[in-house]
Amino acid sequence: MKYPPSLVALIRELSRLPGIGPKSAQRLAFHLFEQPAEDIERLSAALLAAKSELHTCPVCFNITDAELCDVCSDPSRDQNLICVVEEPGDVIALERSGEYQGLYHVLHGVLSPMNGVGPEQLHIKELLPRAREGLEVILATGTTVEGDATALYLQRLLEPLGAEVSRIAYGLQVGSALEYADEVTLGRALLGRQKIRG
Amino acid sequence: MKYPPSLVALIRELSRLPGIGPKSAQRLAFHLFEQPAEDIERLSAALLAAKSELHTCPVCFNITDAELCDVCSDPSRDQNLICVVEEPGDVIALERSGEYQGLYHVLHGVLSPMNGVGPEQLHIKELLPRAREGLEVILATGTTVEGDATALYLQRLLEPLGAEVSRIAYGLQVGSALEYADEVTLGRALLGRQKIRG
Repeated sequence: MKYPPSLVALIRELSRLPGIGPKSAQRLAFHLFEQPAEDIERLSAALLAAKSELHTCPVCFNITDAELCDVCSDPSRDQNLICVVEEPGDVIALERSGEYQGLYHVLHGVLSPMNGVGPEQLHIKELLPRAREGLEVILATGTTVEGDATALYLQRLLEPLGAEVSRIAYGLQVGSALEYADEVTLGRALLGRQKIRG
Repeated sequence: MKYPPSLVALIRELSRLPGIGPKSAQRLAFHLFEQPAEDIERLSAALLAAKSELHTCPVCFNITDAELCDVCSDPSRDQNLICVVEEPGDVIALERSGEYQGLYHVLHGVLSPMNGVGPEQLHIKELLPRAREGLEVILATGTTVEGDATALYLQRLLEPLGAEVSRIAYGLQVGSALEYADEVTLGRALLGRQKIRG
């Protein structure tokens, strides 16, 4: 039995997506086959529209459909605070926290020499001209080995330019019990202890 | 910060896919954003092509892009054997085993009164006219409660029509150790023991 070429093509395209192996791609393809044509057309159109309308903000490299992104073009945001993150999804996560009113800079990755990602592959050279006296840069790359290394690398570049550089806090997750925290996190949480303001 | 509408639309469409929650949909959308435009166009085109070119075979309800599916239109397949499965993906799995040379009948689901799936929602009425003296029907629905119930239901309909009805064997997985098998499977494997042909 030969499979119809259009089914094979769809399974192949779906299995290129991250986290979707050949089996999931096949299941997705069969699921899509069962959906009404309007749904498939809507998904297909959403893909094309997103690709044609979206681009990165030339200042912070967040995703936007305007000339500047919503954050960069908002004068009410704190212009003396830049939070450096790995991916556009991190901006969404931070915005959702509601705690942050400054600007962003999206690196689009993290230093990873093993995977051939050096400083040139990230939006680091565009971050440096934004550094100046009176600016605080919060390094909010992930708390992985690569995230830490990237933060250290950026700190060494940014401090000579006069910016104050900080790292997002390590510590216990909110709502978690001490006994379930790993030793490294617990150690960092102790080191990062803060005075209780009464 | 407002997210660009085309990004929101893409995340919404992706999160309708089975097994993809809002977080995965967001990750997928950002991943797609980073891909070259050709890749997105190819995925989008594959979706539309699959939907417009594929349909179910009017005899066995397998997915095909021809009038009859490859199996139904192949005269070398054993016309006295029909294997009844739940989904088109099951046909692919059985074909891959290389053990089966008969025909298929795809129910497109399984009896599940709790989910409002009765005999009318499945391709059961189209199976009955295929039953006749000299035909063997292998019920290869899943070994779940619903799969077993569907097999029992079909057996009661098919046997009076003169067909010989069998159920795919329960037993140990090939390459598995007895100590890891669950009791029910082990019990069924004992009941289904077969004489060793010397």
